[in-house]
Amino acid sequence: MSDLLELARSLDARDPLARHLDAFVDAPGVSAYLDGNSLGRPLRSLPDRLASFVREDWGTRLIRSWDEQWMDLPIELGDRIAALCLGAAPGQTVVADSTTVLLYKLMRAAVAARPDRSEIVIEEGNFPTDRFVAEGIAAERGLTLRWISGDPTAGVEASDMAGIVSDQTALVVLSHVDYRSGALADMAAITDAVHESGALMMWDLCHSVGVIPIELDACGVDLAVGCTYKYLNGGPGSPAFAYVNARHHGALAQPIQGWMGAGDVFAMGSAYAPANGIRQFISGTPPVLGMLAMQGMLDLIEDATIAAVREKSMTLTDLVVRAFDEELTASGVRLLSPRDAERRGGHVTIGHPDFAEVTKTLWADGVIPDFRFPDGIRLGLSPLSTSYAEAVAGVLAVRDALRG
Amino acid sequence: MSDLLELARSLDARDPLARHLDAFVDAPGVSAYLDGNSLGRPLRSLPDRLASFVREDWGTRLIRSWDEQWMDLPIELGDRIAALCLGAAPGQTVVADSTTVLLYKLMRAAVAARPDRSEIVIEEGNFPTDRFVAEGIAAERGLTLRWISGDPTAGVEASDMAGIVSDQTALVVLSHVDYRSGALADMAAITDAVHESGALMMWDLCHSVGVIPIELDACGVDLAVGCTYKYLNGGPGSPAFAYVNARHHGALAQPIQGWMGAGDVFAMGSAYAPANGIRQFISGTPPVLGMLAMQGMLDLIEDATIAAVREKSMTLTDLVVRAFDEELTASGVRLLSPRDAERRGGHVTIGHPDFAEVTKTLWADGVIPDFRFPDGIRLGLSPLSTSYAEAVAGVLAVRDALRG
Repeated sequence: MSDLLELARSLDARDPLARHLDAFVDAPGVSAYLDGNSLGRPLRSLPDRLASFVREDWGTRLIRSWDEQWMDLPIELGDRIAALCLGAAPGQTVVADSTTVLLYKLMRAAVAARPDRSEIVIEEGNFPTDRFVAEGIAAERGLTLRWISGDPTAGVEASDMAGIVSDQTALVVLSHVDYRSGALADMAAITDAVHESGALMMWDLCHSVGVIPIELDACGVDLAVGCTYKYLNGGPGSPAFAYVNARHHGALAQPIQGWMGAGDVFAMGSAYAPANGIRQFISGTPPVLGMLAMQGMLDLIEDATIAAVREKSMTLTDLVVRAFDEELTASGVRLLSPRDAERRGGHVTIGHPDFAEVTKTLWADGVIPDFRFPDGIRLGLSPLSTSYAEAVAGVLAVRDALRG
Repeated sequence: MSDLLELARSLDARDPLARHLDAFVDAPGVSAYLDGNSLGRPLRSLPDRLASFVREDWGTRLIRSWDEQWMDLPIELGDRIAALCLGAAPGQTVVADSTTVLLYKLMRAAVAARPDRSEIVIEEGNFPTDRFVAEGIAAERGLTLRWISGDPTAGVEASDMAGIVSDQTALVVLSHVDYRSGALADMAAITDAVHESGALMMWDLCHSVGVIPIELDACGVDLAVGCTYKYLNGGPGSPAFAYVNARHHGALAQPIQGWMGAGDVFAMGSAYAPANGIRQFISGTPPVLGMLAMQGMLDLIEDATIAAVREKSMTLTDLVVRAFDEELTASGVRLLSPRDAERRGGHVTIGHPDFAEVTKTLWADGVIPDFRFPDGIRLGLSPLSTSYAEAVAGVLAVRDALRG
């Protein structure tokens, strides 16, 4: 056994979160799943939860469940994510729609709230859907997009705002963790820098929620959006969440005026009057079935604590960086993530011209990282479902595949 | 046994679709479920389908399932709904988002395609979310909303377009089946009348899809949106579908530009370029879990045929109208639905000042219709899950509750 694998096994042996590894569905034929940052694994308890939901809540209580539990679920679940993962007081977070649709609704609300400002600032390397939504809104509202460019491996810094964010900036949209490199932005410092110009700050939390403690309220963040199918294990296409700081609830209006965001849902009134509070950011009927899987994962996070999840996450990514140093540098692989664990999220990205082919080999062999164009492999490490041995096995499999 | 119950039982005995009644989850304590027009019942086979999905497609194939099956699911499922229920050729229907969000996307696309026209026409009594979305779009685009008013029991007619729809009309939005009365609009005649003015026609199919054969292509409809949790039994908040006639695919652009509607999803390119065809109407990551339940119901509809479903639906609503005549008129209950089955969808609405209280009594007793403000009870009859005896039992329970 290599020293690395031995180290990994000793880390597993004293991992206080190792007890949760068995909570996830077995994947026969998969020796290392390293893409929990794209799609978290389902919990073993989920089929029973779904069956009970189908037979009882839906099948027996039937339409009565809307009154009894579903109508409030988007906000109750939002509050739970807020308490466990976001550092946000209740009443500011709602589960709804997709990340893309929520980005649209909140960006539209933000630029309408700053009518005297003509620019949206966004990073060149932000996740495509963030950029595409911003591009569409800028075009339809006659606004200018201003781009922050930078080294993705280093990530965006507060000093990057200088000369870009100004009294013309309505809104700045950044990712908390860069989807390419895993670089972690300094939310507090950047939010402060943006607020100095009077602009609103929106964070995309897709790659940080559930793996890093977030402090939205303490940082004074205005708006945030995140997804629930990565580190919250909500399942493919599970609904997203939106955070709107309570100080904005009276002033921001979102554009997709639907019956479920109206003040009195069943009044069937003649004109739209939005609900008070965070409910006004709901549009259509909440996707109840899609809100079930993440509840089991939130139970695990509550039991583990997000601080312990972060601690294991840093040790996991440190181990992967060490394995990279020892096993991959000789093959010309580049490290595309920050070296300092404090500056990283939950995944480590490495690059090599052969990685498109390597990924095919790995997938066929049951080692499953994520390939990103043009030549990156992301090694996603979801602390509650990924063992240290699995992480090292993934790096060794990359080494072996490169050797052919 | 009353004559009505005897008649109902004889209809059940020779009902060719009766074999499907057992396909749905038992609801202990529920003697008559008459709200399938709000929330269809789950299939008995669903827990196994979900468990297999969790353990295999999601839990074992993991991220590989996006390549293997999920990426194309929104269009494959759309095509299946189109073929079985919509009278639409493949490549024009997609499952995504909520009804509200799809209404927004398609209405926005439609008014942008008629930039020289200043009005959206919508019915005063259309479902609130349709009106709220239209109201929001009219306000943001500087358009005028023009209202069609009419007797909800009679429903909208082609002649109602005269004097309202003009060369200033960009778009007309109507419901195929009125959510209040169940009145069925003449899709062909109204679409023709709207097209004479050069406007686009959008139909809301929420209350007709799965219970009435629809002929979108033959009627030359431009746009349609519908939900899947009523007669398609997709579960609470299951995603909606959008139909965009292929002749518009090059000319219409929707406003929520997301990565899953881009031409090359994983290029992560710098500017948004929409996909060809119906895929461009997708925004965010498809809600896969929410697309599973409806598949079992589509299997049943395929087996039964939508024509047979419609035939039973008409017989069911005729029976309820007859029961109303015999058992409810003496208590002062009004019929709020058309008397002619050809002019009705799948539900029958009755009115009485005491119905708010009556509904509470019925729900507590396991008879579950739907109350609608101010004094309506909707008796929803989902042909594959509702027996004739159940329908009559519902009417008799209303009679008994009124007698107190």
